[in-house]
Amino acid sequence: MKKIVGSPGTASGMLLRVGQCGFSAASIGVMAFTREFSGYTAFCYLIASMGLQLLWSFGLACLDIYALRRKRDLHNPVLLSLFIVGDWVTATLSLAAACSSAGVIVLYDRDLGICSAQTHLPCTKFQMAVAFSFLTWGLIAISSHVMFWILASI
Amino acid sequence: MKKIVGSPGTASGMLLRVGQCGFSAASIGVMAFTREFSGYTAFCYLIASMGLQLLWSFGLACLDIYALRRKRDLHNPVLLSLFIVGDWVTATLSLAAACSSAGVIVLYDRDLGICSAQTHLPCTKFQMAVAFSFLTWGLIAISSHVMFWILASI
Repeated sequence: MKKIVGSPGTASGMLLRVGQCGFSAASIGVMAFTREFSGYTAFCYLIASMGLQLLWSFGLACLDIYALRRKRDLHNPVLLSLFIVGDWVTATLSLAAACSSAGVIVLYDRDLGICSAQTHLPCTKFQMAVAFSFLTWGLIAISSHVMFWILASI
Repeated sequence: MKKIVGSPGTASGMLLRVGQCGFSAASIGVMAFTREFSGYTAFCYLIASMGLQLLWSFGLACLDIYALRRKRDLHNPVLLSLFIVGDWVTATLSLAAACSSAGVIVLYDRDLGICSAQTHLPCTKFQMAVAFSFLTWGLIAISSHVMFWILASI
């Protein structure tokens, strides 16, 4: 089985997982610090989706660290299939959450001009949380493509 | 090279492309029939994204029909790479457009209750257009995964 950049059990794979954990935690942190998020379904969904992503990426980062320290090979077809399903599900949910929240923010900021009219709304924090969620999605998209490529080329 | 269900130049591949054309055209049609869509960036983006999807899927449907009638083989690595890039780009854009529009509709219908308060807003048509765009994304996701699998298993 090929060992390419970002594959499980390698340092690059672990770095991708750590990056996903970091950006998803940052997205949750920034969004949860605003009190207003609970009134918006899209923002609640963003927190739930980023929470799931954080748990998934943290678990796989621990597995990568274990594989690196014990020099174990994680290129097992059953394990890879499990990683692929998880990666694709979390990647799709992360993109959906980021885009639905971005849709709400663009509506408030550009279409209705609510952000400039109601200055108590923490629009900048909402935007930061969405930006972090897009970064998380970018990294999980790389991971999921690498996994799919490895499994398909067996 | 493997010939699996949904691969280019096969009847199943052509049916997938025709389905994508149909659902994206339905999404554009339903959304464009509402006059209010132009005030919402997310809905304009939905129309643009579904328009791109329609053009791409129509082109590939024509290519599939040509390959079926002339019995040509489209399993060429260069052609497949081109199909994959186009499929992934349009699939990501379609999901992003569907989710951002869905975010706006959920905000209006559930969070703010604007749909029940302002009955002149064609919320049902907006919802139908978004539902069609999600169906389009489902079909393009199948196509793009099949293409990726074929190229990776060369």
